[in-house]
Amino acid sequence: MAEPLPDLLEELVADIQNDDPIAILTTLINEDDVSIATLLESLPVDHRIAIWEGLSRERKIGVLVEMRSDPREILIDATPESEWALMFADIEAEDLLELTDSLPTRLTDLAFEALDTKQQRFFKEATQFNDNEIGHWISREQLVLPINAKVRDALRLIRRDVPSHVDTIFLVNRSGQFSAAVKLTQVFGAPEHVPLVELTVGAMPVLKGNDDSIGASLQVQRSGFASLPVVDEANKLLGHLDITAASELVNENYERQIMASAGMDEDEDLFSPVAKSARKRALWLGINLITAFLASWFIGLFEGTLQQVVALAVLMPVVASMGGIAGSQTLTLIVRGLALGQVTNANFRALMIKELKVGGVNGVIWAVIIGMVAAFWFTDAALGMVICLAILVNIVSAALAGVFLPMLLDKLRIDPALSGSVILTTVTDIVGFVAFLGLGTVFLL
Amino acid sequence: MAEPLPDLLEELVADIQNDDPIAILTTLINEDDVSIATLLESLPVDHRIAIWEGLSRERKIGVLVEMRSDPREILIDATPESEWALMFADIEAEDLLELTDSLPTRLTDLAFEALDTKQQRFFKEATQFNDNEIGHWISREQLVLPINAKVRDALRLIRRDVPSHVDTIFLVNRSGQFSAAVKLTQVFGAPEHVPLVELTVGAMPVLKGNDDSIGASLQVQRSGFASLPVVDEANKLLGHLDITAASELVNENYERQIMASAGMDEDEDLFSPVAKSARKRALWLGINLITAFLASWFIGLFEGTLQQVVALAVLMPVVASMGGIAGSQTLTLIVRGLALGQVTNANFRALMIKELKVGGVNGVIWAVIIGMVAAFWFTDAALGMVICLAILVNIVSAALAGVFLPMLLDKLRIDPALSGSVILTTVTDIVGFVAFLGLGTVFLL
Repeated sequence: MAEPLPDLLEELVADIQNDDPIAILTTLINEDDVSIATLLESLPVDHRIAIWEGLSRERKIGVLVEMRSDPREILIDATPESEWALMFADIEAEDLLELTDSLPTRLTDLAFEALDTKQQRFFKEATQFNDNEIGHWISREQLVLPINAKVRDALRLIRRDVPSHVDTIFLVNRSGQFSAAVKLTQVFGAPEHVPLVELTVGAMPVLKGNDDSIGASLQVQRSGFASLPVVDEANKLLGHLDITAASELVNENYERQIMASAGMDEDEDLFSPVAKSARKRALWLGINLITAFLASWFIGLFEGTLQQVVALAVLMPVVASMGGIAGSQTLTLIVRGLALGQVTNANFRALMIKELKVGGVNGVIWAVIIGMVAAFWFTDAALGMVICLAILVNIVSAALAGVFLPMLLDKLRIDPALSGSVILTTVTDIVGFVAFLGLGTVFLL
Repeated sequence: MAEPLPDLLEELVADIQNDDPIAILTTLINEDDVSIATLLESLPVDHRIAIWEGLSRERKIGVLVEMRSDPREILIDATPESEWALMFADIEAEDLLELTDSLPTRLTDLAFEALDTKQQRFFKEATQFNDNEIGHWISREQLVLPINAKVRDALRLIRRDVPSHVDTIFLVNRSGQFSAAVKLTQVFGAPEHVPLVELTVGAMPVLKGNDDSIGASLQVQRSGFASLPVVDEANKLLGHLDITAASELVNENYERQIMASAGMDEDEDLFSPVAKSARKRALWLGINLITAFLASWFIGLFEGTLQQVVALAVLMPVVASMGGIAGSQTLTLIVRGLALGQVTNANFRALMIKELKVGGVNGVIWAVIIGMVAAFWFTDAALGMVICLAILVNIVSAALAGVFLPMLLDKLRIDPALSGSVILTTVTDIVGFVAFLGLGTVFLL
């Protein structure tokens, strides 16, 4: 990436508007696949396809690999059938693994046939793991030597070829089980006759192929190593996870969390076709509509009260809002803790107590403030007392729900980042309205 | 990290509850600084301090560096004055840079005095940059050779010492300006007399010290290189940004975004003292209270209408909810695009048009559905028509606000991840209530 993406994007759009294919080519020529992928994602569909068609065949797979699924699929659909065989000429197992979910089966088969025997084996090994297991995503290209090898063996191996993102030699025993790792930089300083075991890295964490892909990736990022070995159940070396691949998985997971909070997935395309985008988002609107009608139904129980004390209707948003905000603060903290492995059964009770205390303090403070404002606004002390109690009840129960709900969802293996906020808001809305209108019915009629 | 964090945490809490200091020590002995930092963050304050006090002095700075500010400051406050001089014995410039914001000035000064001359120079160079500039965070420990050096010079340099996270030699001209980079793995295969310039890496992106720290970090992650050179305005080599440091900055930024959506910062402590946590969160509750009262005030304008048509009060949450959800979907998509540099002036209009179309489609569909439900529920066709129109208006204006608002905030240099959702909800609440109650006043009275 020779210049920052936003500048590049403005330049490219100007080139397109001037209808200047040479300028477009010049703008893109020095950019890497990731930058081109990101640029294509940032363009409306017609421009995106025009630029795509202008890319050289050799680049196309590399660019596709780096794109999100939704924008990628638009380009796949726009590619003429006759091009694929040529595009697949240099494809590797790792590329194909990224693309399979987006490609029709017949194209996956075509690409698989284009792989050489070793790459076909890599592909098959990878697909024995689900895509939430790290074994699906690891590199299988690596430097391996027997445990009794010497520095001279290592030098011979290195001089032949060092795969990219590799800075370590893995030592295995006769059954192919992982034993230890030696850093390349250690090898270079040492005399040729020294056994490699004398140079091994101290405590290097070892990953299992069926480890959770995000947990494993965070482990690589935290380890300080450029990559970690990955083994199977019998401790046989399967491959390694390097920090570049790990960072991609971690970033994707953060994006998933961020997009999930609005009921979207991380593959959402800035410029997806209107019908597709509307359909994808409609589901979330529908789910939220049901919860909103549920809240309405509870309000409807108090129709008589609302008719007599219209101030209650006016103040309803205040009660709902305070509960929703307080709850979402607790929820966000707990969801992050769950994602990072910092919240478990072991500290659940302590967290619950702390959040209840925080909710209690803020509940009392804001209840009193809001009660006084309401009492003055409507010159009605009883109304002030009613909203004061309702706010207190709602903020405290929001804290409770904010801790309890994500823990429960996590146990049920439902993603709390996706469904947490909608369920929480339903709880705080209903608790808030029922408390407020119920207390109003008791004290104000 | 020898075992997954949640298991480790449960083990540690069990050790603490059994009051077994030997077991605690055994549990922690093989863990790296990051894991211990993460574990300490996951513990209630009293346990956290107890474990902290049991750590060896040599580890303490390393662990502090890896912690978030809020939990870190609790441990700093709990450390007796007399310990610091010993803890600072081996501190390096990069550690001190991480800690300065958390340390009282007198301790920063004490630590600075403990640095050797070279580290003191590194520290001073770093603090010439703001902490949102990448120059603040880069490593200054690296392998540098003159542009005319040969493989033999490189080998001599490497045999002395290779700093961690370094896999590249930077070549500079006589004025210290960055010229090119050579990968260590390239050097090892080559004959001793070969000039290094013949082995240089092709197109390696070069960062500037005052580049935005997140943009620069994403560039490292995308580059495929393990680290990128960083230069000053005159192209003089300042240091390098490695992918481990880059990933930390990127992860922190994602966490910031996630926490900001609930009005919190990424340093929020799971177990911060109740008073502190309540105070930090109260601000956000207060801001949201003002917007809720604003919505209430608008509702209050229609008190007369509400008194006569109480069904309007019952259905208010439906109107507000649909606008809020639709708006937050657009907002989330645009905020992500802005964060990744994928949304700029260049595609703003096209995005606006697309989101308006999506809003239009979903607006019409849900308006009709909700209108029919309301008409049947209250056996009132006119009410159905009123809510139908209000929903349409609210979803379309939510789409408009969802694109326009984050762009505007970004231009004003206000973080859209933090303030976007609260402003958006205010807009959709007010537009929704005014449209609904206004139309109700016109058609239902």
